[in-house]
Amino acid sequence: MPEPTLLVLDADPPPRLGRLSGRARVLHADAHTLADLLPLADALLVWDFTSDAVRRAWPGDGPRPRWVHTASAGVDHLLCPELVSSDTVVTNARGVFDQPIAEYVAGLVLAFAKDLPGTLESQRRRRWQHRETVRVAGTRATVVGSGPIGLAIARTLEALGVTVAVVGRTGRTGVHGPGDLDRLLAGADWVVCAAPLTGETRGMFDAARFAVMRSSARFINVGRGPLVVEEDLVAALGKGSIGGAALDVFAHEPLPEQSPLWDVPGLVVSPHMSGDTVGWRDELAAQFVDLYERWADGKPLANVVDKKRGYVTGHD
Amino acid sequence: MPEPTLLVLDADPPPRLGRLSGRARVLHADAHTLADLLPLADALLVWDFTSDAVRRAWPGDGPRPRWVHTASAGVDHLLCPELVSSDTVVTNARGVFDQPIAEYVAGLVLAFAKDLPGTLESQRRRRWQHRETVRVAGTRATVVGSGPIGLAIARTLEALGVTVAVVGRTGRTGVHGPGDLDRLLAGADWVVCAAPLTGETRGMFDAARFAVMRSSARFINVGRGPLVVEEDLVAALGKGSIGGAALDVFAHEPLPEQSPLWDVPGLVVSPHMSGDTVGWRDELAAQFVDLYERWADGKPLANVVDKKRGYVTGHD
Repeated sequence: MPEPTLLVLDADPPPRLGRLSGRARVLHADAHTLADLLPLADALLVWDFTSDAVRRAWPGDGPRPRWVHTASAGVDHLLCPELVSSDTVVTNARGVFDQPIAEYVAGLVLAFAKDLPGTLESQRRRRWQHRETVRVAGTRATVVGSGPIGLAIARTLEALGVTVAVVGRTGRTGVHGPGDLDRLLAGADWVVCAAPLTGETRGMFDAARFAVMRSSARFINVGRGPLVVEEDLVAALGKGSIGGAALDVFAHEPLPEQSPLWDVPGLVVSPHMSGDTVGWRDELAAQFVDLYERWADGKPLANVVDKKRGYVTGHD
Repeated sequence: MPEPTLLVLDADPPPRLGRLSGRARVLHADAHTLADLLPLADALLVWDFTSDAVRRAWPGDGPRPRWVHTASAGVDHLLCPELVSSDTVVTNARGVFDQPIAEYVAGLVLAFAKDLPGTLESQRRRRWQHRETVRVAGTRATVVGSGPIGLAIARTLEALGVTVAVVGRTGRTGVHGPGDLDRLLAGADWVVCAAPLTGETRGMFDAARFAVMRSSARFINVGRGPLVVEEDLVAALGKGSIGGAALDVFAHEPLPEQSPLWDVPGLVVSPHMSGDTVGWRDELAAQFVDLYERWADGKPLANVVDKKRGYVTGHD
């Protein structure tokens, strides 16, 4: 039996798939060649997870990969109706980003509480400006998103003495349902968005949501840019209806140099890096190789995405 | 029996000592009037803990307070040989600053690991510069100082998955003695100084100490400025023998505008604020009032400083 054809939608640097040699015929595609190569592939690795080329190039009824893996937690960049309704299995990089993103969020919470941005700005001006800071232990956070990233954020903040409520699409033990969202936003010192981008969640953080938050609340988005109505966030910061915000993800990435978001007072802008710790690409490649070997051996895959919902469903 | 005379070396804002009315005759001093008023006082509250006026004004053999309390953790600003050898009891603000300082240190560790200063600088320049960050869980910290502040720092970093070694003046369960210091510095990703300033610790972080640290290590000082030889730290940062540093305390405070420390690359300068969370002055005042009531009732005091050692000795 010939080895399966693995198509890699590349990014720079490409994945290191050493262990696969002999077990796959590897082809490489970029956004321009993807449509031509997809019909030849048994499996597709979406290594360039910043591209939405898959959504645009996915073949309708024609020959197509039986398995698509994306080296990302979110799958919003590849799910098109034809892929959702097909029998192609989609898997994601569940697990790789949990702890790094949780640490990133904890770092932002502490930076806000201790006003580290203000300290760095005073340092630049050579000003000794003593300020009182906020004790993080005893504050309250609401984390929106109950996947492994949201739960890791909750655990990490709890370790700092923060009381955390998690909100998911459906309530379950330890997770609140959407009916509790506005009440929990109203009581939170920290609101963290770690939800998947789906039809239901797009634009969920809008003017009405910011209006229910405390004027001292800080909002942190590490999910996907379109979860937030950016102009509503800017307006909320301008009116002081929330106390500050940090965005690691944006509707348009990379954020253009002329974007007004760069210099909104009280807003920290970072370049979609919250989950990317040293070695992350090797972790992603190793995770894919493990999945590939299972797939090639006919074993059940892990991290299978519920394509209709737009994320991996699970019991955690 | 007339109520005791309590002298307060004031700062702005003054302490709120409401509950003491009727239990003390309260006099107020500043650095200029302190020498004249000290002989009249039964107790002295050093509310302006940034002043070394007590060390300069302390009466030799003459009448003097039987008790001195400082609204600070460190006592280096008031201990002079005459006070050390006298029978005057000295107490400090042990406990008030532990958790705030621990959170502050955790915030700095995460900010370094996630390069938040670099992110804020890129934001100022409107540059989207993705970088890989460091996973904090699994790193190693060495905390120098085994009082309640050092132990709180250790607990908080451990909650983030950091492996922490604590070094104190004498080894005991969970605390390494000074003989282990250089070995533990050599293995640390984070070196945190939370030691008291004493004759033994002054200048302990010098060129030789920075030389044993890793080139990637970050050094954080939340103890007292003179624990560090500032020019040696600047040289170590310049040579790249350590990876970065944060100083919250300095040999001269407030740090003068012309100090070269303000713009050393890789150095975060903050204005001695790590322990000062909202409400800290009220906590300090309430702590003093509790101690005063015990003292006026002839009960044993807590937080008694071992004047020869220069800090409160305890079993934690």
